[in-house]
Amino acid sequence: MEKPEIAKLGYVALVSSDLQKSLTFFRDVIGLEETAEIDGVHYLRAWGDFQHHTLSVEQGESGYVKHIGWRTKKREDVEGFRALLEEQGVDVRTVPAWETPGIGEAVRFSLPSGHTFELYYDIEKPEVEEHRRSVLKNQTYKAWAKGISPRRFDHVNLHTSQQAPETFEFLQNVLGFKMRELLENDNQDILAGWMSVTQLVHDVAFVVRPETDTPARVHHISYWSDDSQDILRAADILKEHGFDFVGPGKHSISQAMYIYVTDPGSGCRVELFTGGYLIFEPDWEPVRWHESERAFGNTYWGDSINAKELVKTTIEAR
Amino acid sequence: MEKPEIAKLGYVALVSSDLQKSLTFFRDVIGLEETAEIDGVHYLRAWGDFQHHTLSVEQGESGYVKHIGWRTKKREDVEGFRALLEEQGVDVRTVPAWETPGIGEAVRFSLPSGHTFELYYDIEKPEVEEHRRSVLKNQTYKAWAKGISPRRFDHVNLHTSQQAPETFEFLQNVLGFKMRELLENDNQDILAGWMSVTQLVHDVAFVVRPETDTPARVHHISYWSDDSQDILRAADILKEHGFDFVGPGKHSISQAMYIYVTDPGSGCRVELFTGGYLIFEPDWEPVRWHESERAFGNTYWGDSINAKELVKTTIEAR
Amino acid sequence: MEKPEIAKLGYVALVSSDLQKSLTFFRDVIGLEETAEIDGVHYLRAWGDFQHHTLSVEQGESGYVKHIGWRTKKREDVEGFRALLEEQGVDVRTVPAWETPGIGEAVRFSLPSGHTFELYYDIEKPEVEEHRRSVLKNQTYKAWAKGISPRRFDHVNLHTSQQAPETFEFLQNVLGFKMRELLENDNQDILAGWMSVTQLVHDVAFVVRPETDTPARVHHISYWSDDSQDILRAADILKEHGFDFVGPGKHSISQAMYIYVTDPGSGCRVELFTGGYLIFEPDWEPVRWHESERAFGNTYWGDSINAKELVKTTIEAR
Amino acid sequence: MEKPEIAKLGYVALVSSDLQKSLTFFRDVIGLEETAEIDGVHYLRAWGDFQHHTLSVEQGESGYVKHIGWRTKKREDVEGFRALLEEQGVDVRTVPAWETPGIGEAVRFSLPSGHTFELYYDIEKPEVEEHRRSVLKNQTYKAWAKGISPRRFDHVNLHTSQQAPETFEFLQNVLGFKMRELLENDNQDILAGWMSVTQLVHDVAFVVRPETDTPARVHHISYWSDDSQDILRAADILKEHGFDFVGPGKHSISQAMYIYVTDPGSGCRVELFTGGYLIFEPDWEPVRWHESERAFGNTYWGDSINAKELVKTTIEAR
Repeated sequence: MEKPEIAKLGYVALVSSDLQKSLTFFRDVIGLEETAEIDGVHYLRAWGDFQHHTLSVEQGESGYVKHIGWRTKKREDVEGFRALLEEQGVDVRTVPAWETPGIGEAVRFSLPSGHTFELYYDIEKPEVEEHRRSVLKNQTYKAWAKGISPRRFDHVNLHTSQQAPETFEFLQNVLGFKMRELLENDNQDILAGWMSVTQLVHDVAFVVRPETDTPARVHHISYWSDDSQDILRAADILKEHGFDFVGPGKHSISQAMYIYVTDPGSGCRVELFTGGYLIFEPDWEPVRWHESERAFGNTYWGDSINAKELVKTTIEAR
Repeated sequence: MEKPEIAKLGYVALVSSDLQKSLTFFRDVIGLEETAEIDGVHYLRAWGDFQHHTLSVEQGESGYVKHIGWRTKKREDVEGFRALLEEQGVDVRTVPAWETPGIGEAVRFSLPSGHTFELYYDIEKPEVEEHRRSVLKNQTYKAWAKGISPRRFDHVNLHTSQQAPETFEFLQNVLGFKMRELLENDNQDILAGWMSVTQLVHDVAFVVRPETDTPARVHHISYWSDDSQDILRAADILKEHGFDFVGPGKHSISQAMYIYVTDPGSGCRVELFTGGYLIFEPDWEPVRWHESERAFGNTYWGDSINAKELVKTTIEAR
Repeated sequence: MEKPEIAKLGYVALVSSDLQKSLTFFRDVIGLEETAEIDGVHYLRAWGDFQHHTLSVEQGESGYVKHIGWRTKKREDVEGFRALLEEQGVDVRTVPAWETPGIGEAVRFSLPSGHTFELYYDIEKPEVEEHRRSVLKNQTYKAWAKGISPRRFDHVNLHTSQQAPETFEFLQNVLGFKMRELLENDNQDILAGWMSVTQLVHDVAFVVRPETDTPARVHHISYWSDDSQDILRAADILKEHGFDFVGPGKHSISQAMYIYVTDPGSGCRVELFTGGYLIFEPDWEPVRWHESERAFGNTYWGDSINAKELVKTTIEAR
Repeated sequence: MEKPEIAKLGYVALVSSDLQKSLTFFRDVIGLEETAEIDGVHYLRAWGDFQHHTLSVEQGESGYVKHIGWRTKKREDVEGFRALLEEQGVDVRTVPAWETPGIGEAVRFSLPSGHTFELYYDIEKPEVEEHRRSVLKNQTYKAWAKGISPRRFDHVNLHTSQQAPETFEFLQNVLGFKMRELLENDNQDILAGWMSVTQLVHDVAFVVRPETDTPARVHHISYWSDDSQDILRAADILKEHGFDFVGPGKHSISQAMYIYVTDPGSGCRVELFTGGYLIFEPDWEPVRWHESERAFGNTYWGDSINAKELVKTTIEAR
């Protein structure tokens, strides 16, 4: 059988300890659109996201990420991954089609790090009501309707304190992620890896953080805007809404410009992101950064806070 | 045997009737870097292009495009494509490794439209001298060294007056391009197609123009900049250098912002380009525009000249 | 007595034949804030305008501009101008303080061209409600709350078919405007003049248009944004709201970037504007453009329509 | 006699302990144009500066600012200021016309703080050679020719450890600067003041720093760019040239966006600057910030270093 493949990052299922605050943050300040609210779960996406949702938010006792969904390249890849995972001794749970609104049959499992990933192929592309629909037929919603108004969901950044080498191995060899840039020490242990199945530098970054409270953490989720000035405008908007943030700055790794701001409901950090480069070369060799270059790798220029501080404020992934 | 695949657009081999003018235009005004000059051929690329060259320019009796190079996903894909093409009755010429500086063994052939494509896998990544090398290890040259300074090569736009349906068929079924957006008439004849092997909306656009002088024409080649304002800055730079141009404007098809300016040496039009969207969905359905929507499809807003005018100023492809 | 002086452009009193359309346009699309609605007149300003209003809109039988208000440098300048104007044989009408909400005692009179100007000194700076107030104490409202969201009112552009030389003379010698750039013919007749009392290139432009329907016309009013990309974002917003417009482009005269869009309620054209230069030199010599340079003077680059077309769509000033 | 008035900030006369480094910095990295080199002094300006020079640089034993030149509104204001200053008991030295190339007769004197100011009216506007001249007749040089390429000189920021109240008094009452924003303590002592004779928020900022090494210091000089993204592009250019810097960030006071970078030859800090607001209101009340708001006043968002650090690296003014 052909090796199953992941096409793209799909969505993050977020739990908030203060749903109203999270909704105000994501809908009014970040400016995401709401596809649907079903059984108290709000399904959100950016104006340029093509599918049902890229973020769901619901009320819970604490803020954490339930799972991270990824879309496969073909329908049969969902089954293919189940077989492959079980072959590897991974417990796989089937999620019946449409149990998650908008999402077809899926498989759900834990990484060695403890993060829950979900793989699915089928997803709905609901029609948009006319007053919110873009006049462009290749765009979902009207751009710039409210708040910061990023174009699309971009990537997730995950922290782990356990089974790091196994996780990097698993992501590359089982799930098919390609290592694009990495941070390593003199023993060539990977301390952080930026990996993708797409031509982005990363759909997911994994950072080894032995000191975290629980083994599987989420450092941030990221939405992409088209222009650098959009990030500066985001800074103004955040300040006018009373939010503090880290940035603006530019990463050396990925070359992307950023602001980090935290959803006050869930504690989930959101990176507002632009720029960077695309990788079209089929023989791309990972760009290797030594741990002595960590500060420069993280921050080419601009505002950046103490990494320890940023670590302390990750949220749990289950 | 596995189906061979193209990874990306590689380079355009351009002939100029006034090499000095072309070099001034591409190196000083557009701001490309020169990798090498060998036997009177100048090999150029943008600061963010990772490989040997994305454009070659040489002196000739008239301005035209010799061929367009594409990199395959694997080394064996070059051989794979040769077999596939010969199976289709296409004449294939082998280009020995390094006959084109920087480029390994390649196959060259004509599309039904008459355009010459080349496929290769091996390509050199020459070391950059320190004073031109970026301080970022994931970037080739220092950014913003001179002129407009785009990041990377993006796409080509080709015109044809012959065998249009066969060409669209060939590009999709033999070469593996995916149709992303298209313009069609009531008979569902494709009048123009935007196709890619990457996650860009197009690596190549093909436009049917029965009225052109020779069957295979090049409408433009395109370099990509990161930000919208870079295109406005390009406008200022072009005017200060005495160039007229079309734009700035924004396409509905691809959602990208543009300026079109013509190399006075070769007559080859260059599109300065930013924005647009990426396609990660594996089941992308081509966005279909009816010929009655042609003007809106081409121009969402901004400056745009008469399409006839733009057609008359294409250059020949051999 | 010291020569009275004008400090700045104040506001435009606009009448709309469809007030609801005008309010939607100015408040939701352009993104102006409403200071107050009094007796059916809506008083609007941008988030960075410091005073009561820079635009008023009210219902009428047709769209036209009632008058254009200017603030004097000192309170006694209002009286000083009355004396000066009466000395010149100009009819002056006194407007009692607060007859126009927010505006103190004023004098109102006609230019030789027929446009009505008003001069006042006192103006209210009403407190802004906390939820709309900027967190910056040097800024009036929160930026980017809705729509295009320009920073401040910038200038007016007026057309006249009568008494043009007298009007230029009057503006400079009586009202104290300095000529900054001008368009002239071989006889050194001024065909258009860009004049200011501030360090902007123009607070008012006067264009001679013998062919207009009524002698006093308003070509456009203009709001200023900080960045070039704001004008591109405005283009997207206008298209998503179904508006056509002229631009984006850049003027040679003033060096400013623009979009022109028309309020569908009043027919009044609004220029969205950024860039340009400031004049600090006390001995500035007007930049002189010959009528043969008119097209280049108007459009350095970008989209621009036939001047005749733009003339036909001016609105009346009374 | 009418009160003499200053029209605008003119130029800074800078001494460098490493002239070659300073010239590389100002000409190649910042991208200023050189008007002339006379007797080892280099006269520089930005592409949008209209007059002879806005910066002079020459070799000396250490880096310091010799004096800061200001242009008066009228020729007779130079004499008027001399009389006014002598009336105040200030020592005034006459600088013969053209002793400073490009600058007519001037008076030079010390502020209570010890900084040397010069006042002049006449200044040359030398013709620009065709290959460097802008195609726009209202602009001096071609824009974007090299380096960061700011538009124009903007302001100076000065520190003083002596006679602070007398200096604020002198600047306002003798020289005619208007206080636009200020930082004060509970006793209403001014700790920092942003003052202008133009419609900018400040042509000069004065900051009280009792702890500095010598009483009169220069914190930075500032050049202005049109767009926010220009500051981000400057960040990239500086990094590619091996420069560290503070920023990008946005001030609350003045609302302007900034980067601070230091000339390695003279030690003089340069602020790359954009945005901010203009003051047209004749009755502007200074915006008052309490010393408890100092950090927020300095930094609305973005990168900012410890103020102490920035103070230590000021250069001397003589």
